[in-house]
Amino acid sequence: MAQTVNKSFIPDLPKGGPLAEYRKRANFDWKDLKLIFEEEQTLKTKYRVWKLLEEDPLFTRSNTNLPTNESKRIAAMQMNHMANLNIVPDEVYNESITQRHKYLCAVNEALHAYSPSLSVKIALGVGLFNNALIAMGTERHQKYYKAAWNREIVTCLAITEVSHGSNTKRIRTTANYDPKTKEYIIHTPDFEAAKAWVGNLGKTATIALTFANLYTPDGESHGLHGFIVPIRDPKTLIAYPGVLVGDIGEKIGLNGIDNGFVMFNNYRIPHENLLNRTGDINEEGVYESVFSEPGKVLGAALESFSAGRIGIMQESVNTLAKAAVIAVRYSAVRKQFGPERDGEDIPIIEYQLHQWRIFPYLAAACVLRVSTFSLFESYMSAIERSQKDSNGFELLTQLVSELHALISSSKPHITWTARDAIQEAREACGGHGYLKASRLGDLRNDHDPSCTYEGDNNVLGQQASNWLVRQWENVESPVGTVDFLNRKDQMMKRTFNCVSKRWSFDHFECESFCLLYF
Amino acid sequence: MAQTVNKSFIPDLPKGGPLAEYRKRANFDWKDLKLIFEEEQTLKTKYRVWKLLEEDPLFTRSNTNLPTNESKRIAAMQMNHMANLNIVPDEVYNESITQRHKYLCAVNEALHAYSPSLSVKIALGVGLFNNALIAMGTERHQKYYKAAWNREIVTCLAITEVSHGSNTKRIRTTANYDPKTKEYIIHTPDFEAAKAWVGNLGKTATIALTFANLYTPDGESHGLHGFIVPIRDPKTLIAYPGVLVGDIGEKIGLNGIDNGFVMFNNYRIPHENLLNRTGDINEEGVYESVFSEPGKVLGAALESFSAGRIGIMQESVNTLAKAAVIAVRYSAVRKQFGPERDGEDIPIIEYQLHQWRIFPYLAAACVLRVSTFSLFESYMSAIERSQKDSNGFELLTQLVSELHALISSSKPHITWTARDAIQEAREACGGHGYLKASRLGDLRNDHDPSCTYEGDNNVLGQQASNWLVRQWENVESPVGTVDFLNRKDQMMKRTFNCVSKRWSFDHFECESFCLLYF
Repeated sequence: MAQTVNKSFIPDLPKGGPLAEYRKRANFDWKDLKLIFEEEQTLKTKYRVWKLLEEDPLFTRSNTNLPTNESKRIAAMQMNHMANLNIVPDEVYNESITQRHKYLCAVNEALHAYSPSLSVKIALGVGLFNNALIAMGTERHQKYYKAAWNREIVTCLAITEVSHGSNTKRIRTTANYDPKTKEYIIHTPDFEAAKAWVGNLGKTATIALTFANLYTPDGESHGLHGFIVPIRDPKTLIAYPGVLVGDIGEKIGLNGIDNGFVMFNNYRIPHENLLNRTGDINEEGVYESVFSEPGKVLGAALESFSAGRIGIMQESVNTLAKAAVIAVRYSAVRKQFGPERDGEDIPIIEYQLHQWRIFPYLAAACVLRVSTFSLFESYMSAIERSQKDSNGFELLTQLVSELHALISSSKPHITWTARDAIQEAREACGGHGYLKASRLGDLRNDHDPSCTYEGDNNVLGQQASNWLVRQWENVESPVGTVDFLNRKDQMMKRTFNCVSKRWSFDHFECESFCLLYF
Repeated sequence: MAQTVNKSFIPDLPKGGPLAEYRKRANFDWKDLKLIFEEEQTLKTKYRVWKLLEEDPLFTRSNTNLPTNESKRIAAMQMNHMANLNIVPDEVYNESITQRHKYLCAVNEALHAYSPSLSVKIALGVGLFNNALIAMGTERHQKYYKAAWNREIVTCLAITEVSHGSNTKRIRTTANYDPKTKEYIIHTPDFEAAKAWVGNLGKTATIALTFANLYTPDGESHGLHGFIVPIRDPKTLIAYPGVLVGDIGEKIGLNGIDNGFVMFNNYRIPHENLLNRTGDINEEGVYESVFSEPGKVLGAALESFSAGRIGIMQESVNTLAKAAVIAVRYSAVRKQFGPERDGEDIPIIEYQLHQWRIFPYLAAACVLRVSTFSLFESYMSAIERSQKDSNGFELLTQLVSELHALISSSKPHITWTARDAIQEAREACGGHGYLKASRLGDLRNDHDPSCTYEGDNNVLGQQASNWLVRQWENVESPVGTVDFLNRKDQMMKRTFNCVSKRWSFDHFECESFCLLYF
């Protein structure tokens, strides 16, 4: 593939400089390698985004820690300015869903490499919002979709509550239907049910896609539903009466994002603001569900957030690569000690200990980029299949469990590997790694929440385990990831093929023997 | 011991609040436990320091990330104000060396718990400087000792150079003796030999204890020596001509400390400014060494920095304990999910997974506090022995290798454990752990350099290994840590007593068997 491509769109590396010596030793063309790891179109999109940002003074990078409010102001201005840059041309919407998502993911990765605050702000306010809108809304909500893209509204997704994070079933915000006025009354019973951590909500959001328990006038609960809830006047950014909204305060990183809280005091919104793809309240005030199993409905709706987890994986792979590259480059330049007592110092990359510390993370960056891309393709092909199939939504529901398990094991693995890579890189760069200029501190602080948001890593791991244990009894694997379990009876007859090494202290004496084979 | 002590000086915990329920379940008196982990006098000193800081508005804590220069200004004012607080009364200097060090360590730990920037600033500018002065200087340098304590001078220790960190033997700053004027000419040959990372040097230091290679007029090098080098006018803080000094810029944490660089341009200092405990230049301009083996001399001199490493261990144990306590307390308050599908949420501390994540760090905090205290006592008793012995300095030199190996293995172990504890605590506290208010972000950013400074952890580990391998041939263990190696011949005849467990997937079937015994 790479041979037929014009690689000139990839900027050259500097010819000189202290890294030139090592670069000359490569026995392959690095641009070919780059085109193996990323598709040509993806790379072109990224370089296009970076060029646009480079040329715009609003995206000049600050060399110093800004006061938190200033970080938020700049990120909001940058997000608002995005529509002017035409980063996502209209043609993109005419492409297939897979091509469109590839394009949007490339834009997200490029923005994330520039500023995680900005990309997360857009991902939360545009990507996640719009994905949820598509999954849960109907025709009558389409106007919000384009409005969010064009920044006519600033949106956010309000699910988590102060005391209800991982356990979304305990969410206590209520939405009581009032048949007299055909309105929903959104209400927060107490502070523990305040929506919290909502990205973009702290200072600027005008619309919150809010999850609340839907109650019909007969007092019956119909479970969690999504509502389009106006928060602030778009002209003045003053909150509407009945909405108590504010910023949750300074964080470890990502301080460009204004995470907020909100409490509703019997706040009324119109009937049409219910996202009614899976259920609605009819003219007579009676709840009508489109599906027989509300649990599965919720699962499918929440699955729209898998896109967010895949985005996190892509970002984390980039972060991992960045940390590894910083450490490898530094170690090729930094000299310390040498083989002879009074001889020249040599680059620390030549030391086995140093290689052992940082090379595995370089390898992980390569392997995990490939595996994340493969997971992305499985995910997109599942969505495409569901759209073509007349029983589309049903099929998607069947695939949800397996994709969720796959993503729930991959997201922890990738985000933790990136976390460890940043830390090892920081230490491997010694004191210079502790300078803000190394970028490793900001990488660490901005990457950190990836281990928590969109599903706490430990909780996700248990969900993946739960699915795996169920597969033991009954394989249900439309993606095919655990097909090998169909051979479990044969496998169970096998014992571990063990090689035991026996050694003494002053010399190694290996003795290998085999245990029972199947 | 604990029973005979009046425990009333330890403030009570709040009676109510969400933790009361778990606290009531304790079957021991927590104040007794506290007095097992720390000596009464140490605790009293800490509470005294904290009370002094609480009552002084200069030590009011900021709730927001300050601009870096503001952090530095505040830390400098606080350090300067220390002398007024009389935190170290004169009586302390009449105590035994061990008692004095215990007192100073308690003060350091207490200040570190309040602000690592402040304690590190004092430790570098007063503790390390004065320890180096005692180890390397003579009578004629004693005036600097008290002056540093009383903040009449602001001091720093300039060893590391831009390109020479771990490898101190490569330091290239020179000190040429000029017999005509009886001065040393301090000179920095090029930027890579600029002193760098020097704490307190960036904005305020007036004196730098500087390491340079001493040359006699015959052109002969006599290795690294310490010099008292005036940097800035104490009244104006303007640098003296010939001294190019500045701040190295923003760091990941510890931004209250003004780390700096300095380059000397044939800068002249008087003859008496050489720290001449181990060697000096006489009236005729000839170098006279007090010891026959300059390598050992340097080792003994550098051993004075072991105090710094022990200080880091004490601080890290406190950091570890703080992180573990934050995570344990939060997990007792935070409720999520429960045993029944629609039942009440239970505190996350009740989950095995959560206990498995954070309890080991609580245990480590206890174990490592005891082991650090024990190491401190070994270290102090070695110093006391050397002072009482007429061959004191010789004896100290003999102990240096073993103490260095002990400290070189313990410092990495403790600082890495604290690092991992902070990260696990951050993740275990979920989103709330990502708030600045959780303190976990500041703990992580401020603790981070402990893995690097006063000896990079990986380099220290190799030094400890190096010592251990030498012990295999010839046990030289005055502290007694590897006495067991005297039994190596017997030990070598033993093989590992292995218990092998063989299990199948659906049920566990253990089969233990023994291999050869000695």
